[in-house]
Amino acid sequence: MGYIVDLNCDMGESFGDYTLGRDNEVIRYITSSNIACGFHASDPNVMERTVRLCREHHVMAGAHPGYPDLMGFGRRTMDVSEGDLVNYVIYQVGALKGLLDLHGMSLQHIKMHGALYNNLVNDEKTYLRIVESAVKAFGDVVFLTLGTRKTAELKEACREKGIRVALEGFPDRMYTDEGELLSRRYKEAVLKDPETIAKRAIRMVKEKGIESINGRWITMGLDTMCIHGDNMESIEAARKIREYSRNEDVTIKPLCEFV
Amino acid sequence: MGYIVDLNCDMGESFGDYTLGRDNEVIRYITSSNIACGFHASDPNVMERTVRLCREHHVMAGAHPGYPDLMGFGRRTMDVSEGDLVNYVIYQVGALKGLLDLHGMSLQHIKMHGALYNNLVNDEKTYLRIVESAVKAFGDVVFLTLGTRKTAELKEACREKGIRVALEGFPDRMYTDEGELLSRRYKEAVLKDPETIAKRAIRMVKEKGIESINGRWITMGLDTMCIHGDNMESIEAARKIREYSRNEDVTIKPLCEFV
Amino acid sequence: MGYIVDLNCDMGESFGDYTLGRDNEVIRYITSSNIACGFHASDPNVMERTVRLCREHHVMAGAHPGYPDLMGFGRRTMDVSEGDLVNYVIYQVGALKGLLDLHGMSLQHIKMHGALYNNLVNDEKTYLRIVESAVKAFGDVVFLTLGTRKTAELKEACREKGIRVALEGFPDRMYTDEGELLSRRYKEAVLKDPETIAKRAIRMVKEKGIESINGRWITMGLDTMCIHGDNMESIEAARKIREYSRNEDVTIKPLCEFV
Amino acid sequence: MGYIVDLNCDMGESFGDYTLGRDNEVIRYITSSNIACGFHASDPNVMERTVRLCREHHVMAGAHPGYPDLMGFGRRTMDVSEGDLVNYVIYQVGALKGLLDLHGMSLQHIKMHGALYNNLVNDEKTYLRIVESAVKAFGDVVFLTLGTRKTAELKEACREKGIRVALEGFPDRMYTDEGELLSRRYKEAVLKDPETIAKRAIRMVKEKGIESINGRWITMGLDTMCIHGDNMESIEAARKIREYSRNEDVTIKPLCEFV
Repeated sequence: MGYIVDLNCDMGESFGDYTLGRDNEVIRYITSSNIACGFHASDPNVMERTVRLCREHHVMAGAHPGYPDLMGFGRRTMDVSEGDLVNYVIYQVGALKGLLDLHGMSLQHIKMHGALYNNLVNDEKTYLRIVESAVKAFGDVVFLTLGTRKTAELKEACREKGIRVALEGFPDRMYTDEGELLSRRYKEAVLKDPETIAKRAIRMVKEKGIESINGRWITMGLDTMCIHGDNMESIEAARKIREYSRNEDVTIKPLCEFV
Repeated sequence: MGYIVDLNCDMGESFGDYTLGRDNEVIRYITSSNIACGFHASDPNVMERTVRLCREHHVMAGAHPGYPDLMGFGRRTMDVSEGDLVNYVIYQVGALKGLLDLHGMSLQHIKMHGALYNNLVNDEKTYLRIVESAVKAFGDVVFLTLGTRKTAELKEACREKGIRVALEGFPDRMYTDEGELLSRRYKEAVLKDPETIAKRAIRMVKEKGIESINGRWITMGLDTMCIHGDNMESIEAARKIREYSRNEDVTIKPLCEFV
Repeated sequence: MGYIVDLNCDMGESFGDYTLGRDNEVIRYITSSNIACGFHASDPNVMERTVRLCREHHVMAGAHPGYPDLMGFGRRTMDVSEGDLVNYVIYQVGALKGLLDLHGMSLQHIKMHGALYNNLVNDEKTYLRIVESAVKAFGDVVFLTLGTRKTAELKEACREKGIRVALEGFPDRMYTDEGELLSRRYKEAVLKDPETIAKRAIRMVKEKGIESINGRWITMGLDTMCIHGDNMESIEAARKIREYSRNEDVTIKPLCEFV
Repeated sequence: MGYIVDLNCDMGESFGDYTLGRDNEVIRYITSSNIACGFHASDPNVMERTVRLCREHHVMAGAHPGYPDLMGFGRRTMDVSEGDLVNYVIYQVGALKGLLDLHGMSLQHIKMHGALYNNLVNDEKTYLRIVESAVKAFGDVVFLTLGTRKTAELKEACREKGIRVALEGFPDRMYTDEGELLSRRYKEAVLKDPETIAKRAIRMVKEKGIESINGRWITMGLDTMCIHGDNMESIEAARKIREYSRNEDVTIKPLCEFV
């Protein structure tokens, strides 16, 4: 029996006349697309265009909600109350779902963006409240979050409630010995070489874990690998992951088929 | 056999710390609520609060999308392309639908706001495109529009396609001989006396038409009366419409039950 | 020789069709107006209207910049970098200055709003950088900040550089023994009785200090008292401060005349 | 005696993480920079960065205000009242002026953007009101507008009032026989060849007029040529205008020195 993994990418982050990301190229290699919803990036037109792009390439679509901070691209923490956050997320996901329904597409997953993504990794209570609200509103969707020891436990807790959580790995990022992402402030935090990234991704899937910056092994079952779509190295890495996967008994499939 | 009419009101137009409209009072008299969706007014918190208010009062909820112009409250025409308009409307309605689904409520109808409402009355082509897109995305919803000769025809054309359109009357507004709303620039354009408004509403329903400012009769089957929720006279008028309806064989029901 | 104090109020916090604050009433009692600049509240029309209101009532105008968070009314902390904050403040103050210049008014002072106001009280480094940039851009303006032990020192340090800082007291707020505002989470944090507030204000000016919630005395030379303009009790308190000041040898003057 | 012309370019139209325009390249060839002010594009950080870029390259700075429509890049007409427009413009220009003052730069000129630019060419009454308000607020600035028969007259009328208007030509655009820009809907409307554009610019300056698409000559004294900064052809055209100007007795100078 082989290995299975999903490849996801943040997409639809253009806005009005502004273009961001190489969506038309990266779409060829991924299985799940995280579509920005207009709060940190995107607008209704960009979203609709991205939905069509996903449909044409048979890529599953998910929502990528963020803080209401277009000027800061959702990368700045905002001190938003739990109740407000729930409403912000449901609003954004609902808006995308309308555009998905317009094109006969289904909503596969939800992945938070930027500072909201990072903050919720360490705030299980708020994350759970958002997750449970989203299930009420949108039914059986997959929640994509950073794979850490804590979220691995969260995943189990959710499974018992019938809620699907997918753990995400970053093959182009260094990890600390504690299994967390090394801050981008360190220049070794981000890998650039497509081959290194691709081999690292395959190893993360097959060996079910991550090697930290100090060579420590962190056991972690990862469901999906994050592909960055804003530079050619990352897109080339995605291409190579696909290429290597064929010889390594790794099947690349969208989350909905196996999580 | 008696008469049937729906009473609708624009609601959820507060924003952040700003309050607008007497939603908690007017909700007691209406059957359909048009909930602003964040473009011309409202925000996710206001919308969620309004959805709960509707649920508590057994009032049917609809979306009230507008131009993306919070500063101008959606009252200023914007030269938006047809394709963009479709996406703006689907985005807004979808966002509301997410919050309705969160609370187990259904989406009964869609009514445009302000300048968008007015512009579409005279732009059947764009209106039809939006309506058909909304049906694709959200299924069988009712489209609420100003009752005029043209929209009465549009209603028939839509019925043949299985699309439900409801015609709206304004009992507190004067009409021209052509059956259009007299511009607010004229001081006689808006009626203030609750009793006059209420009697006018009952007559519009029972006699299936509107008396123009010059006493001309415009035959028009109206499905719903617009109630304004921002002043006490209008709310009192709504109360009186309810009161009079009991003796006049007029049943007040939400649109979904009879359109 | 008598006592001098300024009375300031946050104003111009309406937005588009939304009204907030009783600007037309409170303007009669104050000497300095803090005008919101469009980021947390207000828009160019509201700002221009407020500038005219100040001119008519011979009230000095100041800028009231906040975080770019209209939906949260600038009350939520945003993790904005120091350099970005400087630009946000200069942008907002500059926008107001344009409207002041249009009406031949001068810019008297700058007072931060909401979460930005609170955060800068405890971040002297960032505050100083903003203050020095504002002086470069706008010349000799007064910086209004919460009177605490730390800001009293900051005021002295600024004076040596030729920069004018004014310390603000809140006669309707309880203070901790450390001389900080008691959080609004405690119900005793806010005083409501106009007479109590007014007497407290007069005492703060004459005795140069504040009595804490536990009866402790905090010595503090205060230059201005904050008047809230969103409720009648506060406006009545302002009226009473004026009334009592006449018999108490307290002169109420705008900041520019004595700081 | 030789010829004089200014070269201007719209700049600072990036926003947050979004980049637009080759500001760093085009700045080398122009004498006047039109800096977007946050309504149709730009934000305080982009503006501040652009102000510094102008200072480094000794390029004069001007404000480039637009409609409040970031999503539509200010290219869509909005039905804004005259009074509101004045306030929108003063707000935006004031915001930029704050950032200019921060860096010891002066405000040379004001040029409207997009739909606002186009609409005001045909609305002299509103344009005059804005111009006169801007002079009140900002003193002696130059107003840059499309050179047409009507604006040439407007320029004369303004001169009598002591207000400076500069007429702008588009060497990369075709003109109708009436001396108006041929709509971009026609594919021949925009010239792409740098040499053609540059020669056309030099001719427009030296022969004081424009040749229409049908070969008709429109006499018109033009003060400045618009350079587009978003594509390499336009930047190359600017370079060539500079190159040719040396042999053609054309001096390239900022508006403030000769208008």
